[in-house]
Amino acid sequence: MVEEFLGLPMRPSKPRERGLTHVIDKGMTLAEVDGMFEASGEYVDMVKLGWGTSYVTQNLSAKVKLYHSYETPVMCGGTLLEAAVARGRVDEFRRWTRGHGFTHVEVSDGTLQMERESKQELISSLADEFVVLSEVGSKDQDSIFAPYQWVAWIKEELEAGAWKVITEARETGTAGIFRGTGEVRSGLIDEIVHEIPADSLLFEAPQKEQQAWFIRHLGPECNLGNIPHDEVIPLETLRLGLRSDTLPDLLLRDIPTAT
Amino acid sequence: MVEEFLGLPMRPSKPRERGLTHVIDKGMTLAEVDGMFEASGEYVDMVKLGWGTSYVTQNLSAKVKLYHSYETPVMCGGTLLEAAVARGRVDEFRRWTRGHGFTHVEVSDGTLQMERESKQELISSLADEFVVLSEVGSKDQDSIFAPYQWVAWIKEELEAGAWKVITEARETGTAGIFRGTGEVRSGLIDEIVHEIPADSLLFEAPQKEQQAWFIRHLGPECNLGNIPHDEVIPLETLRLGLRSDTLPDLLLRDIPTAT
Amino acid sequence: MVEEFLGLPMRPSKPRERGLTHVIDKGMTLAEVDGMFEASGEYVDMVKLGWGTSYVTQNLSAKVKLYHSYETPVMCGGTLLEAAVARGRVDEFRRWTRGHGFTHVEVSDGTLQMERESKQELISSLADEFVVLSEVGSKDQDSIFAPYQWVAWIKEELEAGAWKVITEARETGTAGIFRGTGEVRSGLIDEIVHEIPADSLLFEAPQKEQQAWFIRHLGPECNLGNIPHDEVIPLETLRLGLRSDTLPDLLLRDIPTAT
Repeated sequence: MVEEFLGLPMRPSKPRERGLTHVIDKGMTLAEVDGMFEASGEYVDMVKLGWGTSYVTQNLSAKVKLYHSYETPVMCGGTLLEAAVARGRVDEFRRWTRGHGFTHVEVSDGTLQMERESKQELISSLADEFVVLSEVGSKDQDSIFAPYQWVAWIKEELEAGAWKVITEARETGTAGIFRGTGEVRSGLIDEIVHEIPADSLLFEAPQKEQQAWFIRHLGPECNLGNIPHDEVIPLETLRLGLRSDTLPDLLLRDIPTAT
Repeated sequence: MVEEFLGLPMRPSKPRERGLTHVIDKGMTLAEVDGMFEASGEYVDMVKLGWGTSYVTQNLSAKVKLYHSYETPVMCGGTLLEAAVARGRVDEFRRWTRGHGFTHVEVSDGTLQMERESKQELISSLADEFVVLSEVGSKDQDSIFAPYQWVAWIKEELEAGAWKVITEARETGTAGIFRGTGEVRSGLIDEIVHEIPADSLLFEAPQKEQQAWFIRHLGPECNLGNIPHDEVIPLETLRLGLRSDTLPDLLLRDIPTAT
Repeated sequence: MVEEFLGLPMRPSKPRERGLTHVIDKGMTLAEVDGMFEASGEYVDMVKLGWGTSYVTQNLSAKVKLYHSYETPVMCGGTLLEAAVARGRVDEFRRWTRGHGFTHVEVSDGTLQMERESKQELISSLADEFVVLSEVGSKDQDSIFAPYQWVAWIKEELEAGAWKVITEARETGTAGIFRGTGEVRSGLIDEIVHEIPADSLLFEAPQKEQQAWFIRHLGPECNLGNIPHDEVIPLETLRLGLRSDTLPDLLLRDIPTAT
């Protein structure tokens, strides 16, 4: 039981609508999953089994069950579905995903080009059965799209049935909404959030500086993704202003006049 | 039982006065803590729950008890106390810290400016009840202080009652005693250790190259902090000259003439 | 049980002759070892206890037994033997290695210079009792050797009795076959594999971009080493074309005409 001795504003509790932390699991052991939930389960809203890792994870069934035992949705990375598309195995993907009990699916075109119409149909068709998170942006550092293009695509995918749209960054945080150096394309983000409600977006932000940037600009309740499992607790401190990077912005804004 | 087949000079055993390894825990699971002590507990002198992470750790009480079961002091990062100062909750911090059984406290001003006199009073007051480690240096990469300033502050804090003074580096090793690139500000360190006994200092040095630099310059028995848990064994090999970075300096200096 | 719903080409199963993944353990806990095998043991061909870490690992005997229980060879990093050579304790090294049940040994001269003839004798002598992996290349970033030199040394060491020859990269991937930036010395690799069968080589490649480079250039069945334990599953996805970095090269090359 955390004693709230600092009198900080409360964060909404799980399941919540905003301020989501979306963890990337690229091969965690079951003991690490258990440990993450014991220490910080209240801050883990969703988990993604990164790119095609689920396909080679030997104890995948046990892992999916374990996440579900913590009442936490788990999904496969979009690259796995892209691979299925490339190999003409979307129906097999669908059966396999259902068979493992996944309730959420990610639809992306970060590696392989897909016709816009095909992607929207895929989202729409999968949304009949799964909660769909779609992803916009390329994993290729040299593919730079104009902000208006991002906005149009995000809107189309929300209309097609995506629950949230993820903005691409890769596991490393060096593509999509970030430059190769990891720096935020801030003009792009400004334009996106000007047009789309932030609650409908999930920003991949694996690096601490990126997470701090979003929290300073959009507030503690922004949705952040591709969070490594050992950065869940650090991210929560950023959201609360308990780390140097956000403390001056957050912690000092709401001091009761009398303590 | 390690067979000393290389005939290396022995390191002092725990609890020791110098050659301290101070580990940073930014959200370790209990299983990771157990594993660290099984594999390398002899090299873990103290643990810091980084910045404000303790405040959001769900199983904090169990964690503190676990560290104490290994007879290893654990303390909160200085940022938590800075937050308490900012919110006028120092008394609450004190009660909370005592309530959790912490015996050590870190006092820093790396994020928020504090009057020198206030910091000394805080150290002095907390030293009545806790072992105090104070910290000098800013987490802001652009705050560069002159060496004489560091020396004066360290001396004041030792006089105020600090057991050791920590020199700031952040978790990343890119501020305080290091440049933004992680390179050691070697002139600064030279001046500090010229004026202050190295045993009274704890140098934050999260990166391997930084640890190797200190060991080559100050010897294997320097006190090093902000060591990630999976770098405890690697650091011990640096101290003994069993890694390339320090082998030529350490391992060859003490070869028995007859083996 | 992995359902092969994507119809990918099968990888050979353990124990295999090529496509080896050689993991570096720099102080893993026993729980982490267990977790790695549960999730991905099929992809772990060999383990190296990096540089001199074995010497300071408190539960070394239990760790060696644990790896053997998974029928996976484990060896000490070459730096430990270099240290024994430097201190005139090769016989003691041999007894200690045998006593712990190690069946494999690494022979390197990455830190200390050794006469070519001495290294070959050492390989030859140890090969009577152990499976020897020898290593070519310096850990010093400034030691750049010509490709013909690498080729000559590798050939000599295979002739002296090495089972495989490892090409040096360090734990960081910033020396030997890589530039200080981590970039592959591609001309060097081209020349080496032109002269030596790739099956006789084990390329240290700790970074993802390096692994992807080798897989794109030499195919999925190249032998890769110094793989961190949490990169075993990611590497397997690179080998299968289930990650963006190799998907266009691998996954599209072998699509059945009818699915």
